[in-house]
Amino acid sequence: MASITTADVMPSEEARVAWLDALGERCLAEAHRFAEARALDHFSGHREGELAKTVIPQFVAGGKSLRPMFAYVGWRCGGPESDAALRAASSLELLHCFALAQDDVMDGSLLRRGRPALHIRFARWHSEQGWSGSADRFGESAATLFGDLFLVWSEQMLRESGLDTESLSRGWPRYDLMRAELAVGQLADLVNDAREFPSWETLLDVLRRKSGNYTVRRPLEFGAALAGCGPDVLDALADYGELVGEAFQFRDDLLGVFGDPAVTGKPAGQDLRDRKASSVVVLAAEMADRRQRAELDELLALPTVDDEAVSRWRRLIVTSGARDRLGELIRERADKAVAAIDPALFPPHAADSLSILAVRCTERDQ
Amino acid sequence: MASITTADVMPSEEARVAWLDALGERCLAEAHRFAEARALDHFSGHREGELAKTVIPQFVAGGKSLRPMFAYVGWRCGGPESDAALRAASSLELLHCFALAQDDVMDGSLLRRGRPALHIRFARWHSEQGWSGSADRFGESAATLFGDLFLVWSEQMLRESGLDTESLSRGWPRYDLMRAELAVGQLADLVNDAREFPSWETLLDVLRRKSGNYTVRRPLEFGAALAGCGPDVLDALADYGELVGEAFQFRDDLLGVFGDPAVTGKPAGQDLRDRKASSVVVLAAEMADRRQRAELDELLALPTVDDEAVSRWRRLIVTSGARDRLGELIRERADKAVAAIDPALFPPHAADSLSILAVRCTERDQ
Repeated sequence: MASITTADVMPSEEARVAWLDALGERCLAEAHRFAEARALDHFSGHREGELAKTVIPQFVAGGKSLRPMFAYVGWRCGGPESDAALRAASSLELLHCFALAQDDVMDGSLLRRGRPALHIRFARWHSEQGWSGSADRFGESAATLFGDLFLVWSEQMLRESGLDTESLSRGWPRYDLMRAELAVGQLADLVNDAREFPSWETLLDVLRRKSGNYTVRRPLEFGAALAGCGPDVLDALADYGELVGEAFQFRDDLLGVFGDPAVTGKPAGQDLRDRKASSVVVLAAEMADRRQRAELDELLALPTVDDEAVSRWRRLIVTSGARDRLGELIRERADKAVAAIDPALFPPHAADSLSILAVRCTERDQ
Repeated sequence: MASITTADVMPSEEARVAWLDALGERCLAEAHRFAEARALDHFSGHREGELAKTVIPQFVAGGKSLRPMFAYVGWRCGGPESDAALRAASSLELLHCFALAQDDVMDGSLLRRGRPALHIRFARWHSEQGWSGSADRFGESAATLFGDLFLVWSEQMLRESGLDTESLSRGWPRYDLMRAELAVGQLADLVNDAREFPSWETLLDVLRRKSGNYTVRRPLEFGAALAGCGPDVLDALADYGELVGEAFQFRDDLLGVFGDPAVTGKPAGQDLRDRKASSVVVLAAEMADRRQRAELDELLALPTVDDEAVSRWRRLIVTSGARDRLGELIRERADKAVAAIDPALFPPHAADSLSILAVRCTERDQ
């Protein structure tokens, strides 16, 4: 008989990666199941519901389940494996669907997850019916309402997760903060977009208040709070979460300029076409020499950013050194984040998961 | 010394009216206090928050508190006077603010409660800052986000009302249903507006699914469920609520055509200008003779409905008999509703309150 080896007790990194992949899939399946059941409840038997019954669960199924994974890993910093906790964590995927559906309306985004955005799909449907009134306006209103439903369903899914009242009551303040920050942060984003070109410092401030917190830090804290983790663990997760969240956003911004459309599901150079003051764009402006700055002003003043302008702008970002510098900043943050996870404070499986997720968030190509 | 008279034990109708008025004010004050505290939490210290900190609580304060009153009267069908139940009931006012903020964006309404609608106020603010981008789009996005915050705050206010877990767990299914019906009903409304002119039957169906349930029936059922009322009481409240809710909407539609702008806070004949297929408009079409129907088709085809067209359309509604007929339908429903409240099932104070509210909802002029 084989004796028990270290490999049986301490799973290999490969096994941990497989566990995380399976976790992501289970979370997505839970969120999908919940949304599908609610869509059936509310949209059966009405003509306007036929499309919703298909499109709503499909929209949920397209996610990456990153926030539920962080929430569940947060839970595992202090709690046992639990189906109820997994459902509670998965409720964050529906919260994310709320944010995507409504943000795409506000930002006028045409594509989401490689498909037409929700508001575009419902605008097309309106046109196909030959109805009166503005199809665009109808599509935007419908997507906003589906966003509202996702927001309601997320909270309902958490409340009905099966977690005991005490665990839930530890989680609610974090959950409420996350929901409010999401709306308040999106407002700050809109204000930022409307103002003059921001400085690097202003940009970091908005980023910390919005995406940085929302994607990594808050989900981790939420899961750990549900499990009743103490302040030491919560503080370390806050440090880790802020660093990985920021690096995640930097990586997202690099993909918004240099990403492969076939992988990201968004048009090439979309952030440049939208003249979005993203981290890589602002950093290029700060690092540009005089000649480059003049060219950037020219690009910013163009009425529309076409393929040729995208190429010029990309070249400028590379030659200014901003692309490489942002890559360094991402790696620095990922390294610091992993160092924030003190092995004395965290169970080994949680520490391993956090290391793997730090890499996954900062080296991802979609 | 004066002996105890019936008047001391059974409060007069006047005392009951005063109690209801005070109830409405207390509910509004609770909702206002909650929203103000949250707005301070989230908007202090940010430039974009200065206006929100003022406008958000002001928006709440402008309400009529009808839904919280029904919810609290529902609670009093089985529960004792309770500050916690009053706060739970008041959470419905924030839910209503969510609906108003977003519906006004979708319907393009300019005025709300005698002031510019939320999206208009934030569009103006954007213009005043001299920012780039579309001020209208910014205003709509901001109002949508404030709507989201109201939706979140309503649920948070209910959860933190101080009601015990058991009472709350009886209320959640009703609350979830109400929230979902609100979004699904608004979608049905948009679809209805986009289609051809509806029949009276189609209109009643949409009305029952949306406003009829939302304003009276669901709040009553929610409050009674919190208090643990049995099926007999819940069934009677459902009957009462459906009738009063429908009559409330009919009355609202009459005000949308004939209401005094100084009292309603909306422009005269707004529903006609918006070519809204409201109950009174659809009923006039059904009751119109051939000549009147031809004139109506002419009015419906006008590119814009000006003051003169409003006058013609109003005259047509009166001469078709639709105005008087709708008044009869309102009175019939109010009478039937009061009859649904069996004195054997309801405490006298609750029965009295329901009678007074039935009248108030159907004879209101704002």
